[in-house]
Amino acid sequence: VAIFGASGYSGLEATRLLASHPGVELVALSSDRWDGELAGKRSGVAGPAARLHYATHEKAIEQSRGAAAALLCTPAEASLELAPRLLALGVQVIDLSGAFRFPSRAEYEATYKHAHTAPELLAEAVYGMPELAEGVRAAVRAARLVANPGCYPTAATLGLAPLFAAGLLAPEAVVVDAASGTTGAGRKASEEMSFTEVGEEFRAYRVLRHQHQPEIAQALARAAGRAVPLTFTPHLLPVRRGILSTSYARLAAGRDPAELKAALLRAYAAEGAAEPFVGVLDSPEAVSLRAVVGTNRCEIGVACAPVGPDAGRVVVVAAIDNLVKGAAGQAIQNLNLLLGLDEAMGLLGLRAL
Amino acid sequence: VAIFGASGYSGLEATRLLASHPGVELVALSSDRWDGELAGKRSGVAGPAARLHYATHEKAIEQSRGAAAALLCTPAEASLELAPRLLALGVQVIDLSGAFRFPSRAEYEATYKHAHTAPELLAEAVYGMPELAEGVRAAVRAARLVANPGCYPTAATLGLAPLFAAGLLAPEAVVVDAASGTTGAGRKASEEMSFTEVGEEFRAYRVLRHQHQPEIAQALARAAGRAVPLTFTPHLLPVRRGILSTSYARLAAGRDPAELKAALLRAYAAEGAAEPFVGVLDSPEAVSLRAVVGTNRCEIGVACAPVGPDAGRVVVVAAIDNLVKGAAGQAIQNLNLLLGLDEAMGLLGLRAL
Amino acid sequence: VAIFGASGYSGLEATRLLASHPGVELVALSSDRWDGELAGKRSGVAGPAARLHYATHEKAIEQSRGAAAALLCTPAEASLELAPRLLALGVQVIDLSGAFRFPSRAEYEATYKHAHTAPELLAEAVYGMPELAEGVRAAVRAARLVANPGCYPTAATLGLAPLFAAGLLAPEAVVVDAASGTTGAGRKASEEMSFTEVGEEFRAYRVLRHQHQPEIAQALARAAGRAVPLTFTPHLLPVRRGILSTSYARLAAGRDPAELKAALLRAYAAEGAAEPFVGVLDSPEAVSLRAVVGTNRCEIGVACAPVGPDAGRVVVVAAIDNLVKGAAGQAIQNLNLLLGLDEAMGLLGLRAL
Amino acid sequence: VAIFGASGYSGLEATRLLASHPGVELVALSSDRWDGELAGKRSGVAGPAARLHYATHEKAIEQSRGAAAALLCTPAEASLELAPRLLALGVQVIDLSGAFRFPSRAEYEATYKHAHTAPELLAEAVYGMPELAEGVRAAVRAARLVANPGCYPTAATLGLAPLFAAGLLAPEAVVVDAASGTTGAGRKASEEMSFTEVGEEFRAYRVLRHQHQPEIAQALARAAGRAVPLTFTPHLLPVRRGILSTSYARLAAGRDPAELKAALLRAYAAEGAAEPFVGVLDSPEAVSLRAVVGTNRCEIGVACAPVGPDAGRVVVVAAIDNLVKGAAGQAIQNLNLLLGLDEAMGLLGLRAL
Repeated sequence: VAIFGASGYSGLEATRLLASHPGVELVALSSDRWDGELAGKRSGVAGPAARLHYATHEKAIEQSRGAAAALLCTPAEASLELAPRLLALGVQVIDLSGAFRFPSRAEYEATYKHAHTAPELLAEAVYGMPELAEGVRAAVRAARLVANPGCYPTAATLGLAPLFAAGLLAPEAVVVDAASGTTGAGRKASEEMSFTEVGEEFRAYRVLRHQHQPEIAQALARAAGRAVPLTFTPHLLPVRRGILSTSYARLAAGRDPAELKAALLRAYAAEGAAEPFVGVLDSPEAVSLRAVVGTNRCEIGVACAPVGPDAGRVVVVAAIDNLVKGAAGQAIQNLNLLLGLDEAMGLLGLRAL
Repeated sequence: VAIFGASGYSGLEATRLLASHPGVELVALSSDRWDGELAGKRSGVAGPAARLHYATHEKAIEQSRGAAAALLCTPAEASLELAPRLLALGVQVIDLSGAFRFPSRAEYEATYKHAHTAPELLAEAVYGMPELAEGVRAAVRAARLVANPGCYPTAATLGLAPLFAAGLLAPEAVVVDAASGTTGAGRKASEEMSFTEVGEEFRAYRVLRHQHQPEIAQALARAAGRAVPLTFTPHLLPVRRGILSTSYARLAAGRDPAELKAALLRAYAAEGAAEPFVGVLDSPEAVSLRAVVGTNRCEIGVACAPVGPDAGRVVVVAAIDNLVKGAAGQAIQNLNLLLGLDEAMGLLGLRAL
Repeated sequence: VAIFGASGYSGLEATRLLASHPGVELVALSSDRWDGELAGKRSGVAGPAARLHYATHEKAIEQSRGAAAALLCTPAEASLELAPRLLALGVQVIDLSGAFRFPSRAEYEATYKHAHTAPELLAEAVYGMPELAEGVRAAVRAARLVANPGCYPTAATLGLAPLFAAGLLAPEAVVVDAASGTTGAGRKASEEMSFTEVGEEFRAYRVLRHQHQPEIAQALARAAGRAVPLTFTPHLLPVRRGILSTSYARLAAGRDPAELKAALLRAYAAEGAAEPFVGVLDSPEAVSLRAVVGTNRCEIGVACAPVGPDAGRVVVVAAIDNLVKGAAGQAIQNLNLLLGLDEAMGLLGLRAL
Repeated sequence: VAIFGASGYSGLEATRLLASHPGVELVALSSDRWDGELAGKRSGVAGPAARLHYATHEKAIEQSRGAAAALLCTPAEASLELAPRLLALGVQVIDLSGAFRFPSRAEYEATYKHAHTAPELLAEAVYGMPELAEGVRAAVRAARLVANPGCYPTAATLGLAPLFAAGLLAPEAVVVDAASGTTGAGRKASEEMSFTEVGEEFRAYRVLRHQHQPEIAQALARAAGRAVPLTFTPHLLPVRRGILSTSYARLAAGRDPAELKAALLRAYAAEGAAEPFVGVLDSPEAVSLRAVVGTNRCEIGVACAPVGPDAGRVVVVAAIDNLVKGAAGQAIQNLNLLLGLDEAMGLLGLRAL
């Protein structure tokens, strides 16, 4: 397996996770900034992967000949260029950018504000959130190209989709209010992401115009079987890792609040179908950022106001590590499926601190 | 002026602000835990106030004879006992707890889950948020007893009330999603508020059952002239001070999104009525926790989705320092009104760090 | 293996590490506060250990009959009582408190300010820092009772001991200036350890009177073969985990600065004797708290002023995770030795975040 | 008064402090990055200063004609160019960089590693630490050019100088171990200063080669009347503002430990000479970063080991806000002296949060 964009935060996380993955051998790590340097030195990994040298994209493509798959931890523009070339070499691709998450070129271009240069691939790309619905796993196993979901969409969707799928939520607009640690902004020299600017601070950003809004709406629409109008507000937290999303919907007429948690349990914790990476907790308050940071887990809690002026209001809180379940970890779930390995291989035993 | 409960975080903030207030002399500071100790030593204040000794409630009541007013920075149970006694001595009272914020005993008891022992005072208590509406200032000036608003209600209400008052928001349920620094939990020995537990963490608490939910709903109902169904979710931030609230409503039919900011400007920044402590910014993203921490200011930004699947969605972000505008600072605004002083006295020139 | 004091931070860390340790089965977890509760629920561990119930000390002693060993994560007073009882049952003991770290009762009592109630055990207790010197491992393997080193002493000693052992440091007083995250203070309800008090703060504590000062001095004296006068100043960092110590000594007359790093490499990274848990870096600046937090590693860097007004000054920086290499992780190294297992079992593959 | 380099953190702090200074009118603010923008918008200041526009250095020099003084908050290279030009216009200069802190060109060039292009000014520059010694204030009042001390040197020197001046410290090498918040690194886009890199981290930097080492040594040598060999190690704290220095020296033979605190009190808190900005606390543990952040104060505590293996060891802890007493605040003290104003004007009443 090759990793492109290995020096960003999600590429580095992928490197570290795959370096100790029992079913995978790393063969190439692309990074312009670390070109020529040793992986052991820069990423801190041990074992055979430590002896790999970072290489340019071009060199890494060469090194990828014969590889089973590549993880693209690159910006969307780079993924658009890399994916077709790797597929042409017979290398399956899991792309962590937004490049292949929308089925239509128009929606992509409206969201990402630049041209989609590989539209012929959109039809075959599989949106790889294995726990989202029956059929996703089979589709990933059969795919050549997997679009790995975004970090906010993973948290919000895992919390809401089973409720929509069970018909428990009214056809009313949904609010997703979420907050992310600073690794979500990627690794870059930036004054606005400096400790001085972010410490003791909390603010909203990209209000009503974040690129993850249509992605969440699309995933929920699939679960609901209808369009889901949705407002999404991301905030920047003074923590390093983790996303916590608090979502607001309304109980469908005639449904019982107790069905909400039951639907989550059925989706994620049913007999014979227990999801190893999703936990359904007793309440939204029980969901903790720090309990999932470092792991591939998503924790979810739901509550509903049974009486009172806003009766029927449903509040769903979900938390993930944006770099693991929200990026590299979920990519490795997809990789395992693609390679016919156990889906959880290399992802159990990660621990929160 | 006397301060009761002077060793809590809001009591300490009140002490520090009043110690350098040019129009006020402190005459008593009650604190069981610091009974007998020097104010200069414990609070760090300089000047005459430094030579005051903390005293028990009983002693401080004696010391308050002849005082113009008392700030109660005590828990609601203590305020319920102190307020009638101080009023009986002719001392005007500004209470920072929730004890007198509801006009009806029933609503108080449903919210705070204990008996209201001074219901005879509820009718005369004035909810002291000076910027909320015309008439509030006059009412505070004439009051014997002021109920100082809660921290979350101050942030959420200042952001939403002018929009309701202007008829700009649809009669639809409102969501207030907010986050507070740790000083909001008060000063106490608590494992759950330890640095180890709060650092790198973010979580929701008291979901669908926080005592500020009815207080916000009541304040907005006054502005709207009708009931406002409302869901409120507080979160705990790993910062020391500050509240940022992100509220969601819907534009009323037939209204223009541009009217939203205009209404805020009219309420807070109109010619001849410029509020010194409320700033209307260009966007919700511009609102910053740290820019208001340390000051008595509230900053507000509003946006509205003009088109798209959730068109008409209104997002209002507001930020305050929970200990200043959300507690001691607003109490001093009220105190200044009560004493016939300039409302901003002692509150300008506070600086953010 | 049994763990006593399993609800404190080091007890919890030991529980989590041993729950996934391939060579150990947990049989008892003592905790007064969680008595009767399920380990899976409180500690988050999975697997067989999740089904253990926390028990009182008394019950846990009963459950420990037949166990190979017990980890005491209890305060010194409790360890003094538990150790003799467990040893009498044939259970080997690794004590994480300071109870058995000094060979003499007098030194213990002078340091910990209370009576040592099991002085008969002091002679046989082995100070279990495996990397400290040749012979330690053999002594631990043969021991009934291991005194697990303190957190600050582990960081400071691993950095300085090889330099003393190699005769590279002058017989001059040494300064150890160190800083620890808040987990070092243990789990407790405490106002002074609250986020509000610790956030954006940094201060020294127990200056010239910290109980780890004599422990460090003793460990260095063994390495040096002479008394080492030493001043130690701990500081409290606004981080959750980790200790970084910056130590100051002076190069012995006639020695070359280049010998310093060479001595560290010889002690920790020699052919055939590479320590898996100690890394010698290129410089003191390269040592990073976060790189070791979550792992059982200690990273060390040394520098020496070759010329200038303070020529010969040696600066050694070392970092560990106070809960892992500084407590539970080192205890498991000792446990592995005691049980005849591979010393690193269960401790490799821990990752920093 | 003009401020050059007004968009850096110390320039911004100077702008904010001078905007509300009752004895000073701001006439120019230079900043290349904010050229043409309004000061009120960027710096948040109110009043007349809010209406100033940032300008290039060239334009600001023009605007400074007729100004009484200029604060240079610029890098040393820029200060070297600006200072002679402003002095030639008759504008007195307070330089916050290291450009004029050494009397000799050689020492400057050895420390800052570039040529000193205005060596003719070195002889007349006054090192402006008003509390350092008798005579400093008079020299500043008479100066054309003041070299404002560095942040670490201010903390370390204020703590140690009176002890050297009183002959209480042995002629032995001194260790200064200090830690600074991130604003000390200045405002810049930098990956290494990002929240992701600095959060939960603590490390040493520029070990044995920080440019403040010779500055501290020089200031202490003046106090001691002899050379003071000194080792200085700075660390980066995960806080925004503040420096805490922990210094190690040895009590001179025949002196009593009680003389240490007495000497500090005599220097800073004597009858008729009470320093408004220096506090002598009861112990090193009492010194708190957060208590001084936001203020122009320095807090100091000293302890000495009376007996034991390292008897005579002196530990001095001192804390300041690096942007106030360590930069802009001390510059305003100097400005007040230069302009014949009360030294504390505009600097009292600043509050810690």
